[in-house]
Amino acid sequence: MTPEEFRKAGHRLIDWIADYRAGVESRPVMAQTQPGEIKAALPASPPQHPESFDNILADIDRIVLPGITTWQHPRFFGYFPSNGLLASVLGDYLSTGFGVIGLTWQASPALTEVEEITTDWMRQMLGLSAAWSGVINDTASTSSLVALLCARERASNFSLARGGLQAEAHALVVYTSAQSHSSVEKAALLAGFGKDNIRIVPHDRTYAMRSDALAGLISDDVAQGRKPCAVVATTGTTTSTAFDPIEAIARVTASHGIWLHVDAAMAGSAMILPECRHLWQGVEGADSLIVNPHKWLGAVFDCSLFFVRDPEHLVRVMSTTPSYLKGTADGRVKNYRDWGLPLGRRFRALKLWFLIREQGVEQLQARLRRDLDNAKWLEQEIVKTPSWNVLAPVALQTVCVRHEPPNLTGDALDKHTLEWAARLNQSGEAYVTPAMLDGRWIVRVSIGTELTERKHVAQLWQMMQQAASRK
Amino acid sequence: MTPEEFRKAGHRLIDWIADYRAGVESRPVMAQTQPGEIKAALPASPPQHPESFDNILADIDRIVLPGITTWQHPRFFGYFPSNGLLASVLGDYLSTGFGVIGLTWQASPALTEVEEITTDWMRQMLGLSAAWSGVINDTASTSSLVALLCARERASNFSLARGGLQAEAHALVVYTSAQSHSSVEKAALLAGFGKDNIRIVPHDRTYAMRSDALAGLISDDVAQGRKPCAVVATTGTTTSTAFDPIEAIARVTASHGIWLHVDAAMAGSAMILPECRHLWQGVEGADSLIVNPHKWLGAVFDCSLFFVRDPEHLVRVMSTTPSYLKGTADGRVKNYRDWGLPLGRRFRALKLWFLIREQGVEQLQARLRRDLDNAKWLEQEIVKTPSWNVLAPVALQTVCVRHEPPNLTGDALDKHTLEWAARLNQSGEAYVTPAMLDGRWIVRVSIGTELTERKHVAQLWQMMQQAASRK
Repeated sequence: MTPEEFRKAGHRLIDWIADYRAGVESRPVMAQTQPGEIKAALPASPPQHPESFDNILADIDRIVLPGITTWQHPRFFGYFPSNGLLASVLGDYLSTGFGVIGLTWQASPALTEVEEITTDWMRQMLGLSAAWSGVINDTASTSSLVALLCARERASNFSLARGGLQAEAHALVVYTSAQSHSSVEKAALLAGFGKDNIRIVPHDRTYAMRSDALAGLISDDVAQGRKPCAVVATTGTTTSTAFDPIEAIARVTASHGIWLHVDAAMAGSAMILPECRHLWQGVEGADSLIVNPHKWLGAVFDCSLFFVRDPEHLVRVMSTTPSYLKGTADGRVKNYRDWGLPLGRRFRALKLWFLIREQGVEQLQARLRRDLDNAKWLEQEIVKTPSWNVLAPVALQTVCVRHEPPNLTGDALDKHTLEWAARLNQSGEAYVTPAMLDGRWIVRVSIGTELTERKHVAQLWQMMQQAASRK
Repeated sequence: MTPEEFRKAGHRLIDWIADYRAGVESRPVMAQTQPGEIKAALPASPPQHPESFDNILADIDRIVLPGITTWQHPRFFGYFPSNGLLASVLGDYLSTGFGVIGLTWQASPALTEVEEITTDWMRQMLGLSAAWSGVINDTASTSSLVALLCARERASNFSLARGGLQAEAHALVVYTSAQSHSSVEKAALLAGFGKDNIRIVPHDRTYAMRSDALAGLISDDVAQGRKPCAVVATTGTTTSTAFDPIEAIARVTASHGIWLHVDAAMAGSAMILPECRHLWQGVEGADSLIVNPHKWLGAVFDCSLFFVRDPEHLVRVMSTTPSYLKGTADGRVKNYRDWGLPLGRRFRALKLWFLIREQGVEQLQARLRRDLDNAKWLEQEIVKTPSWNVLAPVALQTVCVRHEPPNLTGDALDKHTLEWAARLNQSGEAYVTPAMLDGRWIVRVSIGTELTERKHVAQLWQMMQQAASRK
């Protein structure tokens, strides 16, 4: 495809996306596809000869589009919002069009320096001190793994340079709560700690980690000759958006020299609102921190910020400098390859930079406040409706809800919950995510796509009531 | 930004990229920017109010563009080619425009099923048997880490479910050659093996791993009570594109039940040419395999294929299924989140699917054959020129070259090599990568960007001779 063919095809694609985005509200939220349906519609072998762009685009309409769940739909209330605001989309288009890779500073200086600027803008927007340095990773799963590797190497005094984790005399232990994201346990297992050395710290009735229980578990481990290594606390848990008490936890970790990693992947965006910052009070006591602008804030996926207070330690754990990656400016520049797992890096900062510039901080703040308001409204509607309950504090934009008809308990109630949620999702009219809380199913309503206004939340609330009353 | 504003701005951006791509040859290859120059030109704090798209685009022209190294330039001979063919760029634009995330099959069935189809197309194109299953990761660094985690867990009988690597009685050992990519050692260190348990297997005069030496090291480790865990062999090393003898290595690993991981990140693309497949003879004996279509083949970065022969094992190591990720189709569909590190996944298959369809297998093959031809031509030119030498076999498209004037040896020769390479790079006319081979600097000429024709290679050869003769 020549640049001139690209110009023509590109204009068509832009129009296609503009039409798609303009029409999201009229599309089903959850894709209505059966397993295997898309695979069966596609050729099982690659084409030997070139195909026209017309052909490819026709297949997008005919085969791919029906298999797309409409994450940008105003009645998407599933998982967490993954806003891909259109200014951010254009920033990513520029990155892809350049076709550059950030192996080293020299491999495209702008890629590194715009990332330094943009992550520092975010630091300021979040109200963090200048002691933090940021880098963009793909996802929080990756950042949590990096954080635990840093913790492991600090606690073991760089065992990787010797016999590795397998030669350590004392078992290193990681602490988190049952409400932390699944990626935390996954990261701890992959980092080699082993399930026996992951402690699940009890939580209180708001689903927040109990710092006294944490202190107790740490004492027990120390008494038995084990070495407390890392605590992963959550600012805004996945199921109910609970807030672990960072300040109290940081006191515990500081007194034992334990690495404190704070997962604020979702709720971190709320910290651009000064009135929300009490929710992570004490965060300056952490060693590492995740905030995902690709969730609520609006940077198109993937754009996960990883902040650390000791970048030298991070670089010491992550760095590799073979001869073919040496640059003439080394020592005077950042080489972000040494801040994470992958060597090759996209110019991801552009999508965040475009977003912040096109929106301005005030407009981002206004949208988040709108969503907080909508969540409060929904909570109040639910609370005043018989047989409906809110199961967890609504601190931000997630509402955990259950329809509890009289005489329906235990497994029968679970069955009812899953059934009405599935009915709602299968209708294509709205999308919610069932999840377990205290061993029983509830339904999460996660408010916050760009297009979600009060009327969409009101529509959802009607639909929920209808889905729950139908059989 | 509304969809209508996006339509307008998007057309401008497409034109901008089309113009950029049409004009790459007239741009400097290496960015001419000084460290810190771009940072200094950007505001240190985020804007409170929205900015116009005009403003943003003006900054791209004024500040960002001068800091971009032109990877798509026909005289880019650095690192490895990272071709981002324009059809692939459009595939990625579609992915970004959708703004969907592949957390689960249900979260967008097309994202999973097009990935299944496309990775299987690639399997067929590479001449691999149906025993392989593929998934798309960001980079080879990530895939090598995943491979070594799989190896670790197989050798330790799933230590992660118990005391982890730290509770293992016998040290697990990883084997690779000094010519393997830096990401291999990094992955082994991060996976917890420790530097003491990484064996550097000697290589022969072609820079290929010696399988007899490998067998010897393994015997020594077994004799001393250690447990050989994984061998990482390379199909096309970074410095000189050497080929480890996969068949002989696979015989060794098979006899000891050791995990064999083959890194064919760069040279794997050549396997779409049947005449090249002898270079990885025996690859069916491996357990895992990396091929990066985002290098020579032309899928825009990031698109790294990871193939495994036992996906059930991979999933057992990587899977997490919290309640909020359960789907109604589970058990009947693939959930690729359980095939790698990140939970959230972009719709990456589109950029590869667009590439293969727009090019057709034959056109991809023709371009790669052109590049092989150009490399052979350059090799012959160098060999017949006094004081110039080719330092390693030219098996594919990388030529390792040195200008060796009479009476210049040792450190003085190194200095000369680095100086002329820097002169050439700083001229902006062409870009090459110095690297070390046998402890001395050489210059790698890596041929294979989409636009590189014979005349560009001839121009480079002239420029190299000029750069080396100037003082």
